[in-house]
Amino acid sequence: MPSDDSPENLPETLRVMCSRTVLRNYAPDPVDDSLIEKMLTGMLAAPTASNKQAWSFVVVRDPAHVRRLRAFAPGIIGTPSLIVVACVDRRRMSGASAEVSQKIYETAKLCVAMAVENLLLSAHALELGGCPVGSFREDAVRLLLGLPPFIEPMLTVPIGHRAHAPEPSRRRDKNEVISYEIWGHGDATNKAA
Amino acid sequence: MPSDDSPENLPETLRVMCSRTVLRNYAPDPVDDSLIEKMLTGMLAAPTASNKQAWSFVVVRDPAHVRRLRAFAPGIIGTPSLIVVACVDRRRMSGASAEVSQKIYETAKLCVAMAVENLLLSAHALELGGCPVGSFREDAVRLLLGLPPFIEPMLTVPIGHRAHAPEPSRRRDKNEVISYEIWGHGDATNKAA
Repeated sequence: MPSDDSPENLPETLRVMCSRTVLRNYAPDPVDDSLIEKMLTGMLAAPTASNKQAWSFVVVRDPAHVRRLRAFAPGIIGTPSLIVVACVDRRRMSGASAEVSQKIYETAKLCVAMAVENLLLSAHALELGGCPVGSFREDAVRLLLGLPPFIEPMLTVPIGHRAHAPEPSRRRDKNEVISYEIWGHGDATNKAA
Repeated sequence: MPSDDSPENLPETLRVMCSRTVLRNYAPDPVDDSLIEKMLTGMLAAPTASNKQAWSFVVVRDPAHVRRLRAFAPGIIGTPSLIVVACVDRRRMSGASAEVSQKIYETAKLCVAMAVENLLLSAHALELGGCPVGSFREDAVRLLLGLPPFIEPMLTVPIGHRAHAPEPSRRRDKNEVISYEIWGHGDATNKAA
């Protein structure tokens, strides 16, 4: 009998989630604008603290522009069809005290990360793939994309068609990273207690 | 004709993504362990930089423990059936220089946020709901959950059955937050150029 969380017992969304992995080998075909629009729709549905939406995204899909951007993002391997640059918009946290502003900023970064995960899941659901990349030269990216000072790039996300379907990476044992009630207590421990 | 990104043209995963919203009104029914396992499976499939999995999660499902934790997390409204406390595990970044270590730590926070989005999407796909909450008293949460110093709580995530199905919040216009090629250039601008 398959276990409770084997793929056949999971809803479609969870199957997509569990089969997603980083894609670094892109087929040369461009990604249709209609697919890009769908991915962006999924991305913008991410949670956003206090509905502030303190984020801003630049979609780079012109091949020459993609190549230039890639030159300053060593973490981007292969040649993606497009790159989404996910940013925090600091204008959306103005007016607050320095302490509150810092807390809003930290939270905004988490919301941008959630939007990026939605983007990656959307890409995978549409049989594309991508990879979150935090390694880039901020000064060069700022210049290339014309980012004003209040827009802070967090992650670049190369996206493209799959050259071949990659396998999800092996993960640590669930019991190593999940505790119940008290840190360090696995499920069995907790149930026996 | 429905537009390209109207719900009927989207894959199931994107429909789940776009209908998800924060849930703050929980039905009193407990959440089955089998559903919790499914959600945790989805959560742990999130991207993790260099496959470091520098994360740790505590699942609080004992009703008395949930109540105690809630008392120190003013951001948690209503009475959820369980609370997942999502943490960064700082042990997974030891050995690196201070600068590299700080970069790994910043990235680990983004990965924890992505895992939380997977958790929320999984909950929604299973007809449950939840809410990411960053407002909690860290000292009290540390004490209640027995967190060692290297485990840093980032977000608490109350989860439960829906008392009623909430509507997704209104969002800023797509053109306000998405640019093409250069920051500040919307789709139409770009195409006309």
